[in-house]
Amino acid sequence: MLRQDGRENGQLRPVKITRNYIKHAEGSVLIEVGDTKVICTASVEERVPPFKKDSGEGWVTAEYAMLPRATGVRNARDISKLKLNGRSQEIQRLIGRSLRTVVDLKLLGERTITIDCDVIQADGGTRTASITGSYVALVDACRMLKNNRLISKMPVKGFVAATSVGVVNGKEMLDLCYTEDSNAEVDMNVIMSDKGEFIEIQATGEKSSFSKKQLDGLLNLAQSGIDKLIQLQKEVLK
Amino acid sequence: MLRQDGRENGQLRPVKITRNYIKHAEGSVLIEVGDTKVICTASVEERVPPFKKDSGEGWVTAEYAMLPRATGVRNARDISKLKLNGRSQEIQRLIGRSLRTVVDLKLLGERTITIDCDVIQADGGTRTASITGSYVALVDACRMLKNNRLISKMPVKGFVAATSVGVVNGKEMLDLCYTEDSNAEVDMNVIMSDKGEFIEIQATGEKSSFSKKQLDGLLNLAQSGIDKLIQLQKEVLK
Amino acid sequence: MLRQDGRENGQLRPVKITRNYIKHAEGSVLIEVGDTKVICTASVEERVPPFKKDSGEGWVTAEYAMLPRATGVRNARDISKLKLNGRSQEIQRLIGRSLRTVVDLKLLGERTITIDCDVIQADGGTRTASITGSYVALVDACRMLKNNRLISKMPVKGFVAATSVGVVNGKEMLDLCYTEDSNAEVDMNVIMSDKGEFIEIQATGEKSSFSKKQLDGLLNLAQSGIDKLIQLQKEVLK
Amino acid sequence: MLRQDGRENGQLRPVKITRNYIKHAEGSVLIEVGDTKVICTASVEERVPPFKKDSGEGWVTAEYAMLPRATGVRNARDISKLKLNGRSQEIQRLIGRSLRTVVDLKLLGERTITIDCDVIQADGGTRTASITGSYVALVDACRMLKNNRLISKMPVKGFVAATSVGVVNGKEMLDLCYTEDSNAEVDMNVIMSDKGEFIEIQATGEKSSFSKKQLDGLLNLAQSGIDKLIQLQKEVLK
Amino acid sequence: MLRQDGRENGQLRPVKITRNYIKHAEGSVLIEVGDTKVICTASVEERVPPFKKDSGEGWVTAEYAMLPRATGVRNARDISKLKLNGRSQEIQRLIGRSLRTVVDLKLLGERTITIDCDVIQADGGTRTASITGSYVALVDACRMLKNNRLISKMPVKGFVAATSVGVVNGKEMLDLCYTEDSNAEVDMNVIMSDKGEFIEIQATGEKSSFSKKQLDGLLNLAQSGIDKLIQLQKEVLK
Amino acid sequence: MLRQDGRENGQLRPVKITRNYIKHAEGSVLIEVGDTKVICTASVEERVPPFKKDSGEGWVTAEYAMLPRATGVRNARDISKLKLNGRSQEIQRLIGRSLRTVVDLKLLGERTITIDCDVIQADGGTRTASITGSYVALVDACRMLKNNRLISKMPVKGFVAATSVGVVNGKEMLDLCYTEDSNAEVDMNVIMSDKGEFIEIQATGEKSSFSKKQLDGLLNLAQSGIDKLIQLQKEVLK
Repeated sequence: MLRQDGRENGQLRPVKITRNYIKHAEGSVLIEVGDTKVICTASVEERVPPFKKDSGEGWVTAEYAMLPRATGVRNARDISKLKLNGRSQEIQRLIGRSLRTVVDLKLLGERTITIDCDVIQADGGTRTASITGSYVALVDACRMLKNNRLISKMPVKGFVAATSVGVVNGKEMLDLCYTEDSNAEVDMNVIMSDKGEFIEIQATGEKSSFSKKQLDGLLNLAQSGIDKLIQLQKEVLK
Repeated sequence: MLRQDGRENGQLRPVKITRNYIKHAEGSVLIEVGDTKVICTASVEERVPPFKKDSGEGWVTAEYAMLPRATGVRNARDISKLKLNGRSQEIQRLIGRSLRTVVDLKLLGERTITIDCDVIQADGGTRTASITGSYVALVDACRMLKNNRLISKMPVKGFVAATSVGVVNGKEMLDLCYTEDSNAEVDMNVIMSDKGEFIEIQATGEKSSFSKKQLDGLLNLAQSGIDKLIQLQKEVLK
Repeated sequence: MLRQDGRENGQLRPVKITRNYIKHAEGSVLIEVGDTKVICTASVEERVPPFKKDSGEGWVTAEYAMLPRATGVRNARDISKLKLNGRSQEIQRLIGRSLRTVVDLKLLGERTITIDCDVIQADGGTRTASITGSYVALVDACRMLKNNRLISKMPVKGFVAATSVGVVNGKEMLDLCYTEDSNAEVDMNVIMSDKGEFIEIQATGEKSSFSKKQLDGLLNLAQSGIDKLIQLQKEVLK
Repeated sequence: MLRQDGRENGQLRPVKITRNYIKHAEGSVLIEVGDTKVICTASVEERVPPFKKDSGEGWVTAEYAMLPRATGVRNARDISKLKLNGRSQEIQRLIGRSLRTVVDLKLLGERTITIDCDVIQADGGTRTASITGSYVALVDACRMLKNNRLISKMPVKGFVAATSVGVVNGKEMLDLCYTEDSNAEVDMNVIMSDKGEFIEIQATGEKSSFSKKQLDGLLNLAQSGIDKLIQLQKEVLK
Repeated sequence: MLRQDGRENGQLRPVKITRNYIKHAEGSVLIEVGDTKVICTASVEERVPPFKKDSGEGWVTAEYAMLPRATGVRNARDISKLKLNGRSQEIQRLIGRSLRTVVDLKLLGERTITIDCDVIQADGGTRTASITGSYVALVDACRMLKNNRLISKMPVKGFVAATSVGVVNGKEMLDLCYTEDSNAEVDMNVIMSDKGEFIEIQATGEKSSFSKKQLDGLLNLAQSGIDKLIQLQKEVLK
Repeated sequence: MLRQDGRENGQLRPVKITRNYIKHAEGSVLIEVGDTKVICTASVEERVPPFKKDSGEGWVTAEYAMLPRATGVRNARDISKLKLNGRSQEIQRLIGRSLRTVVDLKLLGERTITIDCDVIQADGGTRTASITGSYVALVDACRMLKNNRLISKMPVKGFVAATSVGVVNGKEMLDLCYTEDSNAEVDMNVIMSDKGEFIEIQATGEKSSFSKKQLDGLLNLAQSGIDKLIQLQKEVLK
C-alpha cells in the first residue's frame, strides 16, 4: 500500500541542494524536493530597517513568490493585480521568523540579509523546502561576510529545517506532494532545530478537527524527516 | 505569584459577548476579552466568489482590521500605504478557515457570509477574540436566514472558539495580554471545537525553540480555556 | 405632522458623547446622534508634515472611514479596491479644515494631532457628528498635553460643532436621518462656532436649485441646533 | 483702490469660451478666465455605470485634473503617487453633481456623458471655470446626439455657471485670482442656475469664521457675476 | 497619387511651434504637427534623483501622457486603473534618453529638468512631435538658467528632432498621420541630431518583416524630414 | 585583441536551449546565453482579451521579469513598489510584438498563449535571449495544441530570433555581455526572421549619435549572429 509515487508513508521525497546557483548572490541555492524546485538567494545589504537603526543589530527578512507557471494553471503576477498574494505574505513572514530564531543579530552587525525564495516549479511543500534551502543560502552569505572580515564570528547558532506532514485518507504521511496535500484531512508544517526542538508548528484541520493523538503521531513523523534534512544540510555545507 | 492583572496562570480574562451590536448587520457582536474589544459583523450576500459559481455551495470569508488608534501608538491605515498589512492578511485567512470547518457550505446555499472583525481596542489576543466572537455573529446570521426561510436547516455544525497560550518568563500562561505576549518565549494560538479536538494550532518559538513537553502543557492550558469560552458561547446563544 | 421618528422639524436627535472611550488615545470619544455612532480619537505625534517643518507650528489633520457594515448594505473596504473612497476624502478634508479654525497652531508647537473618525453605525449625519465629537477628543488631547507640561497654554480658541439641515418633501428640517437625507431636495451641512458665526457651509440642491429664502430658513434651523450641540460639548467637557 | 490686476471688487476677469477645441470629442471647449485655462471635453459612451443598468436613464460624470506644470511649482502626477489627489476628487464630484441638476437623465437615455476638465494653466477659480466651460461642452454633446437622432429632445433643462467670491483684506471680491484666493479670509464657490437660484454653495472660513451679513454680501456678488457668465454661455451657444 | 490629406509621400505635415505657452514653466511650447498637438513644459527643480546625488551632475527626465479625449475614443486615465500605461512609459523613457544625448549634465549642475509632454489632441506621431517640441522647451529653460546666472554656459550641445516614417500600402512615406500609421506595414521612429547622425531608431515590422533596402529608403526619408524640423527649431529659437 | 571573455568581436557567447524545463507548462525552455539564464514558459488559456472577443482569432502576449537577485545588486520586487518596472514593460511589449509577427492568429483560434520570461541570472542581452528562447517554448505549446487536436495546422509561420550588437570602445561587437553593454557607445537590439529580414530594430546612441555606416556594420554583425541562433532553434526543435 505505497503512495502514488511509490513512497512509504514515513519517507521523504528525494532532496537535492545545489549551492552557488546564482553567481551574483552572497548565498544561493537551488533546492529540489521531488518536483518542487525553489531558488533561494541570500543578499547582504549594508543597511537596516528603521526599527533597527542604531541598535547595533542586523536583520534577516524573507520574500517568497512563485513564477506564474510554477503551477498547473498559470497564476497572474502579483503586480498585475497590485496586491501581494495573501498566501505569499503569510509564507514569507514564516520563513523570516524561522531563520531569525537561529541568527544572533548582534553578531551580524547593522546589515540586512534578505532571503528571496522563488518557486520555479511547485509540487507541494514549497514553504518548507524554502526554509530548508534558505538556511543553506543564509549560512553561505554569513561565511562570505566572515571570509571578507566584515564580521568576526559566525552569527548562525544552529540548524533549522522544515517539512510538511498530514493525514491523507486517514493515514499519517510525511512530506506531502501536491495531490496528497490537496486531499489532506489535516495539514501541518513543522519547523525544527538540530536540538530536536520546535521552532514553529502550523497545524490545520482542513476538512475537520483532529485529535491530540493524531497531532502526536504527525509530530513524530515530522521529526524523523527533519532529522534527515538537517543531516543533508550538514553534508552540503561541509 | 500572580500575573500583572492579578490573574492566575491558568485563568482567562473576563469575557463579555454583546449580541446585535450593529443594527444593520445580519449578525453582529461586540466581544470584550479584558481590554481587547472587537466588533464582529456577519453580512449575508446573495452571491458567491467565482470558484463557487454553480456549485450549489456557499462561502464564508473574513476580513480583519484594527482602527488606527486601537493600539498604544497610532498605526497608519492600510489605504494610506496602499498595502494590506501582512499580519492582518494572515489573521483574516485564519478566521475564515476556522469558521469554515464548522459550516456545511451545501446547507448554506449559494450565498456568501462575510465576517468583518474590526478591533476597536487592542490588548493582546485580538485574533482569538475575533474567532470566538465571530462564531456567535455567524450563528446569528444563519438563524436570520433560517427564520426568513432562506435556508431550511442550520448550516453550522458545532462550536468553535480560540485562545492564546504562551511561555512567559518560563511559566506557561493562558490568554496573554499585550505585555505578556510581547515578552513571551513561546506564543501559541489554539482553535478548538466543542468535541475537544483541534481546528488549528499556530505555535511559534519567538525567541527560542520549544520542547514537546512545553507544547503538551500549553495545549492542555488552551483546552481548559476554550472549554470555558464555548460554555459562554452556548449561554449567550440560548 | 411629526417626522418618522416622532421628532418635530426643528428638533435634534438624542445626542450622547462618551469621553475616554479608547484607553490608548490621548483623546477619544464615542458620539451617538440617534443611531449614528462614531468613534473619534485624537492622537498626538511629535512630528509635523514636511510643509510645517521648522515653522514652530503644529498641525491638525483628520481621517474618516466607515466600518464595512456600518451601513445597510456592506461596503468593500478601501484597501480591497486600493482607492480611498471619494466621499471619505471629501469628509476628512472638511473635518480637518473645520477643527483647524479653532486651533492656534503656534501654541500647539511642532507636533501633529491626528483625528480618526471611524463610523461604526451610520444613520445620516456622520460627517457632522464626526466634527462635533472630534472637537471634544481634540480638547482632551490638548488638556493631556497641558497636564504633561508639553504645552503651556491651551491652543483651542473656541467651540465648533456641526449639524445637517435640509428640505424634505418641501419642509425644512434639522438633523436629517438617513431616509430623510436620501429624499432631501436640498441638503446642507453647517459648521459654526460658539460666536454664532459660520466656519463652513456646504449646501447642495440634490434634485433642484434652491432660493435665497430657503437658504436663510435652513441656516436659522442649523444655528438653533448647533447652539444646543455646543451647550452639550460645554457640559461634557466640564 | 483697485485690485492687483486693476479690476474693481465686483468685476469678473475677462472670460473667453472657444467651442470645438478638440476635434475628436462630442463636445469640447477651451475656457479662459483671466490666466486660468481649462480644456473641457464631453465624451458620449453607449453604456451606463452598474447602478443605472436597465433604468432607462443615463448618467453624467466628471473628472478633473491639472497638468503637472499648470501651477507655479510642478506637481507630481497622481499616477506617480498612485493616489488620486484629494482636492481633485472633491472637485470632480462637485462638477458632476452640478451638471446633473440641469440634465434630464431619462431624456438622455442609457448612455454616459463623461466630462473631462483638464487645467492647462491655473490662476485661481479652476473649479468654477470648469463648471462654466463644461456646461457648454455638455450642451454641444447633447446637440450632437440630437442631430444624429440618437435622442429626440434636448435633455439639458437650463443653464448653470459658477464663480468664486471671497473676503480679501476685509473686502468682498468677485472672481478671485490665485494670489487673492490664497490670502482670502473667507472663500466661497457658488453655482447658480439661470433662474437665479442656487445649485451649490461651498463657503469656507479659511482663517476665521464669518457672519451672516458677510455671507449675504458675497452671495450677492456671486449672483451678479454668474448672471454675466450665463449671458456669455447663451451668446456662445447661439 | 497623393496621400489622404493631399501630401506627397516625402512631405511633412504643417508644423508650428509656439514658445512660452504656459506662463508658470521655465520653458514651454505648444507644438502642432498637423492635427497632433502637444504641450511640452520644462520644469527646473533644484534637486537630483538619488543616483546623481553629490555627482556634480544634473539630470533630464521626461513624462508623457494623453488627455483622456485626445483620441477618437475616450481613454480612461492611468490613475483610475492605478497603472501607468505601458505605451506612455515606453515613450517617456525614449524622450528622456533622446534629450539627454544633447545635454552636458555637468554644465547643468545638480538640478533636474523635467519635461512634461501632454498630448491634447492626437493624430499620429505624438512621440516624435513631443521630442521635437520638448527640445525647444528645454533650450528655453536652460536660457532662463543662464540669464538668471544659475549656470554660466549653455549645457545644450546640439539640436535633436524626430519624425516617423513607414511603409503604407507598399509605399514609403514621411510623417504618418493616425490612419496611415494604423495601416502601416512597417513603422519607424527616427531621432537625429543636427550633424545628420542617428540618436535613436525604432523600426517595427507591424505586419511582416522588412528588408535592408526598405530600411535604407525609410532612413533617407526620415533624414530629409528631420533636416526641415531642425531648420524650424533654429528659426523659432532665434 | 580579444574581448574580456576571450571572444572575437563577431562571436556569440555559448548558447544552450533546454526544452521542457517546467513540467506544468505547455511549452517551456531554459535558455542560457553565456551567464544570462532565462526561463521561458508558454501557457495556453482558452480565452482571449476583450479586443479579440468573437474575432475568431487568438492572441499571443508576453510578460518579463527578473528575480530580485538576478543582478549584481538586489532589486526590489515590482510588487513592493506597486509599479511595474518601466524597463520590464518596454521589454515585454517587444517580446509579444516580435512573436506575433510569426503567428497566424486565425489558425491559433480563440485562445491566448502567454509567454513568461523570468530572468534567473542576468549578464546582458536578457531581452534578446528571452525572444530566442520564447520562440521555442511557443512552438512547443502550438505542437501540444496540434497533438491534442485543438488546432489542425501549426500557426507558427517562420523562425524569429534576436541578439544585441553595439559599439564598445569604438569597436563593433556581437552579443554584448553586461560590462560591454554598460560601456557601449551605441547599443542595438535586432530581431530577425529566418528569411533574413528585420522584425524589429532598436538602436540607441547611449553616449553620442551614430552614423549610417556604423548602423550598417552593426546590422551585418547582428545578421550573422541571428543566422546561428535560428540554426540552433532548428536543431533543438527537430
